[in-house]
Amino acid sequence: MSKPLDYDNINENVKKCQYAVRGELYLRASELQKEGKKIIFTNVGNPHALGQKPLTFPRQVIALCQAPFLLEDPNVGLLFPADAIARAKHYIAMTSGGLGAYSDSRGLPGIRKEVAEFIQRRDGYPSDPELIFLTDGASKGVMQILNTVIRGESDGVLVPVPQYPLYSATISLLGGSLVPYYLEETANWGLDINNLHQSVAQARYKGITVRAMVIINPGNPTGQCLSVANLKEILKFCYQENLVLLGDEVYQQNVYQDERPFLSSKKVLMDMGGPISRELQLVSFHTVSKGYWGECGQRGAYFEMTNIPPKTVEEIYKVASISLSPNVPGQIFLGLMVNPLKPGDISYERFVRESKGILESLRRRAQIMTDGFNSCRNVVCNFTEGAMYSFPQIRLPPRAIEAANQAGKVPDVFYCLKLLEATGISTVPGSGFGQKEGVFHLRTTILPAEEEMPAIMESFKKFNDGFMDQYEDHTGYSRM
Amino acid sequence: MSKPLDYDNINENVKKCQYAVRGELYLRASELQKEGKKIIFTNVGNPHALGQKPLTFPRQVIALCQAPFLLEDPNVGLLFPADAIARAKHYIAMTSGGLGAYSDSRGLPGIRKEVAEFIQRRDGYPSDPELIFLTDGASKGVMQILNTVIRGESDGVLVPVPQYPLYSATISLLGGSLVPYYLEETANWGLDINNLHQSVAQARYKGITVRAMVIINPGNPTGQCLSVANLKEILKFCYQENLVLLGDEVYQQNVYQDERPFLSSKKVLMDMGGPISRELQLVSFHTVSKGYWGECGQRGAYFEMTNIPPKTVEEIYKVASISLSPNVPGQIFLGLMVNPLKPGDISYERFVRESKGILESLRRRAQIMTDGFNSCRNVVCNFTEGAMYSFPQIRLPPRAIEAANQAGKVPDVFYCLKLLEATGISTVPGSGFGQKEGVFHLRTTILPAEEEMPAIMESFKKFNDGFMDQYEDHTGYSRM
Repeated sequence: MSKPLDYDNINENVKKCQYAVRGELYLRASELQKEGKKIIFTNVGNPHALGQKPLTFPRQVIALCQAPFLLEDPNVGLLFPADAIARAKHYIAMTSGGLGAYSDSRGLPGIRKEVAEFIQRRDGYPSDPELIFLTDGASKGVMQILNTVIRGESDGVLVPVPQYPLYSATISLLGGSLVPYYLEETANWGLDINNLHQSVAQARYKGITVRAMVIINPGNPTGQCLSVANLKEILKFCYQENLVLLGDEVYQQNVYQDERPFLSSKKVLMDMGGPISRELQLVSFHTVSKGYWGECGQRGAYFEMTNIPPKTVEEIYKVASISLSPNVPGQIFLGLMVNPLKPGDISYERFVRESKGILESLRRRAQIMTDGFNSCRNVVCNFTEGAMYSFPQIRLPPRAIEAANQAGKVPDVFYCLKLLEATGISTVPGSGFGQKEGVFHLRTTILPAEEEMPAIMESFKKFNDGFMDQYEDHTGYSRM
Repeated sequence: MSKPLDYDNINENVKKCQYAVRGELYLRASELQKEGKKIIFTNVGNPHALGQKPLTFPRQVIALCQAPFLLEDPNVGLLFPADAIARAKHYIAMTSGGLGAYSDSRGLPGIRKEVAEFIQRRDGYPSDPELIFLTDGASKGVMQILNTVIRGESDGVLVPVPQYPLYSATISLLGGSLVPYYLEETANWGLDINNLHQSVAQARYKGITVRAMVIINPGNPTGQCLSVANLKEILKFCYQENLVLLGDEVYQQNVYQDERPFLSSKKVLMDMGGPISRELQLVSFHTVSKGYWGECGQRGAYFEMTNIPPKTVEEIYKVASISLSPNVPGQIFLGLMVNPLKPGDISYERFVRESKGILESLRRRAQIMTDGFNSCRNVVCNFTEGAMYSFPQIRLPPRAIEAANQAGKVPDVFYCLKLLEATGISTVPGSGFGQKEGVFHLRTTILPAEEEMPAIMESFKKFNDGFMDQYEDHTGYSRM
């Protein structure tokens, strides 16, 4: 007799969801690593895992918050600067019982206030702490909002393709329908509003009620930064179609070009004024995992709700209560991110040096990687304008596709597995993010250490040359 | 036109779920606190919020892990003992990039190994790290397992009544059916196996497939510790009925009597031997939030799977991947809990002094509270054998019930609100946990500081006397 947790008996939605970032490639990479092979994990935006050092000041503050008895030690000044000590006291005073006590399920009121002040400084419009919830990483927030939106199979969510698979996986898990809209690779992964209209029309034809739209800005895996004009079109579109907009803005600090600085969906919405600015429902996400922080393991994030009615906010609060509270240290990291040091603070110069160093290096790495990919045979790659990824298109020769089919693999999975085995570079196949039929990509982060980057690109090029040699038919004769 | 996140349009399962621990009473208490009233928050098992000091050693270790640059500072020995320094190095070496890097989605392999060793020492049976997943608090683990089990409305989960509302809320959220089984208040909240059979029969009659059973041992809110005989009956019952057993064992360190020390479901299952021990599907939960740790805000926990097939474990892993990784500092707290200091370690004596102090005081507080309640008019209360709660029955006079009905309140909510307004004691009404028809309770934690306990019980008694005076009809005449 088969048992409740036997594979055949479990929730089908659990089985349906796919999460390529930690899928077949990652599992194989982990195996190879166990066998002693050197693996370069570029499958996930995890900067510290690739050697990025944490910023010193926030770590000093959090260490003191975790060990508040140090504040009474006469030697504390030997190890910690005065501004870190002051800031630790500031955050401890916000808790009710230190870092070991559950906070309010929405997060500590004091930190939510600091987030609201940050948003207000950034956008030039008021922000209400009561509409800001802190979460264990942005993913948890996205999942909670989608859970509020999705009522069943006929509820659709517009998701960019290629997309970060958090969205597809969560929609599957919640039993909703993903409605894809395609980004235009030839237009630097721009968003064409006509595609959106088409996607909605097609979904409606299938009986799907489109209720929400996701944008990722800057883009993951595609790296593009949306223009103001594009954002306005999107907002209008959501308003016309009566959609709630989910603005995934976790890469807002990661911008590597100067023409289109980051602008939040909320700011653009407020700039538009009129009924849309008072009515369009918007939820925006941000985190300490990205930017020059890269504090992924701390799981600190927030979402801000705009034009969401109080009764719904209450329901979201209630559901957040079931898991009691987001982790408190992660909340404090978030506080430190949104309320950074100011000129004149003792640790200010060091903080600026560290953070500028990281961002400038990321900018250079984005360039090295794009150039590297574009110098490879059958590889074309848009410049990484923002975020942490490069998403080159690999033009796989027909014989490679055939070989992949014979091996029972999706062609880009086949390519990425071979790349992994040959070089130790652990990427994610484009099929994990979605791509147009017959077109293949891979995603890699731009996070390997700058000094290692040339060797990595060299190693990639060598592999790719060999692969193309093997599968490309220059002569008209097939080679074995 | 109504919008996607307007209350009327959101997911009905979100609306359906109830979570009383942070419900009406908690919200009112928060309001009163804002107005300046002194509130004693006994609604949630949050020890540090009521003044319990964190254990020193783990906080020293985590501070060093967060600020690893301190390990290179020549002055580090002035603030940190050598064993904390050594342990910090031990955990940092387990990460791949420190606390700021995502770990494997199941948690750090090194910590999962320490958890397995702890379980093996505790139970005397092998434990496999591959079947142990770390989570952001035990609630998140419970939610993940229930999400794997529940496929739809006709899937039922047996849950004790009274129960911790995590279970009822999660089952609602996931669209499953709660199948209640009643604990026997007159038998010290014992579990009568006949009730279980009846509950399953009734559920089947309604077309529900019962697929899982939850036990909370020691009990929340009821505080009972299950006997070996009882655990064996439960395991046999689950085996016969083909149920997966969820063993909520987060209070395993909180036992205040000596007759029935804590025994894990896994140990009892393994002791039974034979096919049941190789076949019964069991998932057990534990956390750093309870015990003498009380590190609720850190969100560190694990679950261990027994007899769950590898393909299902893979699916659970995949779903865990969607939110990337549990917070890493919380994982290290868990490591510290399962791998505590040993005799001879520099910090050992202090650690023992601190932890014993907390546990012995909790034991005394359990007694003070039980005695206090039992000395009150129309109040009867079982002794808190374990966990962190007292769950007295309040025999509400008919006129109080009538007054509650007139006020549009559930009678125990009415009572608890009046208690809150009069004394600042913030409890949770029994109806939030479930109780038999016409019987009323409240739940309070036993966590207020020991020295404040007599005054709190005094204040409760005074309120209760007044309440009973007002609503009890001694004379046969009704009073206004």
